[in-house]
Amino acid sequence: MKIARFSHDARIAYGIVDDGDLVVLASDPMFGGLDTTGERVPLADAVLLAPVIPRSKVIGVGRGYYASEAERDEQEAEGDRRLEPQFFIKPNTTVVGPGDRVVLPAASAEVHGAAEIAIVIGKIAKNVSIEEAEDKIFGYTIANDLTAVDLLKSDDHSARAKSFDGFCPLGPLIETEFDLEGIDVSGGVNGAQAQNGDTALLRHSAAETVSFLSSCFTLLPGDVILTGAPAGSFPVQAGDVATVTVEGIGTLSNPIVRL
Amino acid sequence: MKIARFSHDARIAYGIVDDGDLVVLASDPMFGGLDTTGERVPLADAVLLAPVIPRSKVIGVGRGYYASEAERDEQEAEGDRRLEPQFFIKPNTTVVGPGDRVVLPAASAEVHGAAEIAIVIGKIAKNVSIEEAEDKIFGYTIANDLTAVDLLKSDDHSARAKSFDGFCPLGPLIETEFDLEGIDVSGGVNGAQAQNGDTALLRHSAAETVSFLSSCFTLLPGDVILTGAPAGSFPVQAGDVATVTVEGIGTLSNPIVRL
Repeated sequence: MKIARFSHDARIAYGIVDDGDLVVLASDPMFGGLDTTGERVPLADAVLLAPVIPRSKVIGVGRGYYASEAERDEQEAEGDRRLEPQFFIKPNTTVVGPGDRVVLPAASAEVHGAAEIAIVIGKIAKNVSIEEAEDKIFGYTIANDLTAVDLLKSDDHSARAKSFDGFCPLGPLIETEFDLEGIDVSGGVNGAQAQNGDTALLRHSAAETVSFLSSCFTLLPGDVILTGAPAGSFPVQAGDVATVTVEGIGTLSNPIVRL
Repeated sequence: MKIARFSHDARIAYGIVDDGDLVVLASDPMFGGLDTTGERVPLADAVLLAPVIPRSKVIGVGRGYYASEAERDEQEAEGDRRLEPQFFIKPNTTVVGPGDRVVLPAASAEVHGAAEIAIVIGKIAKNVSIEEAEDKIFGYTIANDLTAVDLLKSDDHSARAKSFDGFCPLGPLIETEFDLEGIDVSGGVNGAQAQNGDTALLRHSAAETVSFLSSCFTLLPGDVILTGAPAGSFPVQAGDVATVTVEGIGTLSNPIVRL
């Protein structure tokens, strides 16, 4: 099932994609379930928005993918001793929707995008096991994890480089039936593919990541976990349209501007 | 004026401290102003809560204080070339209130507290000048910026060490008339002072910090900025009561437990 958040006729609502229409939901599906109102809105008449605005946090997994099959095989032989997920926090003020422009910050001359699959949390999760974790996932969407790479080393923390307004485009939809196995993930600008990888090299399963993160803090409905970027990142510049495509979900596009 | 968020008779409300009472406010003062309901609740009958729960983010300033007067004098001579504020993000799930217990995370054997003054944002702020910044500040409260210091170097990011549930006690009150000049800040456990400093060594004024951060992201009403710790930090262990005292605001106390 594909779920969108959208604006139409001066209201904001959620809907299930069905045969070119949005079947309107009675409330935010992460809090109110999937009851529908009976109304249908043609997809073509709706403006799709970021499908979720976290009440709490966006978590970005660092080094989410193995660099190579050789590294994967070596680490997986380590079992419990393989690397734990690493992560950083992006505040919810970074989130924008599909088609929204991303304004390059004045303080940076080198911004990179990164094509990522995002996990959307659906239920409160605290210290959940890997077995329990799957049930806490509402669905999956697409993210462009933007970073001011020239600011990464400007201080002791990665926060500034990751936290500018607009640095987390999400969307266009949440896919609730999605399996991370063997998914192609790609990104680039202006139609050219600059980054491409496959979830075969993903370091941890979604359930492993959710379980680990739930040992660090309470995950709340609407929290978003960026699973990391396969095979690097891609520079974005003013005038570009950045796109991220995830097989089975769709394509997220955002114009890049400098004011 | 001192403002508290409190629970009393199974409801949660805000109030202005007045002569041993709380004068009840009609709504959240950061969103609804300072209209009162006419009701008074004795302070002794109220349970004080974290005075603010950020809708978006807690920002922690790193190296917020000069290490010494000599470093201050040297840097201030640099003018525009002195260090910009550095920062990390603590998710809003770290926030607990005065008296709330802090549970030590199983993953860490070495947690430190840090006594800090916290700025509470009252108005949306984006790219504001130093002159405009003062008006965006609602008031000041006390924070204990907890860190799992043994996890700081466990990965490429400081996020994990800073983000455990309960790692940002705030309170007990917000002081709206407060001047950062010459304020004594101290922290420790079980009544012993383990950390003490003075805002004379604060690296940036509140207005400078708010202005800088507003160039990185939109600050929202209720966002909290921890201004950094003077003179180090102090270890906390299960069974301790950690306290942070800020002259002119009060004392924030939290029992430390391990489950």
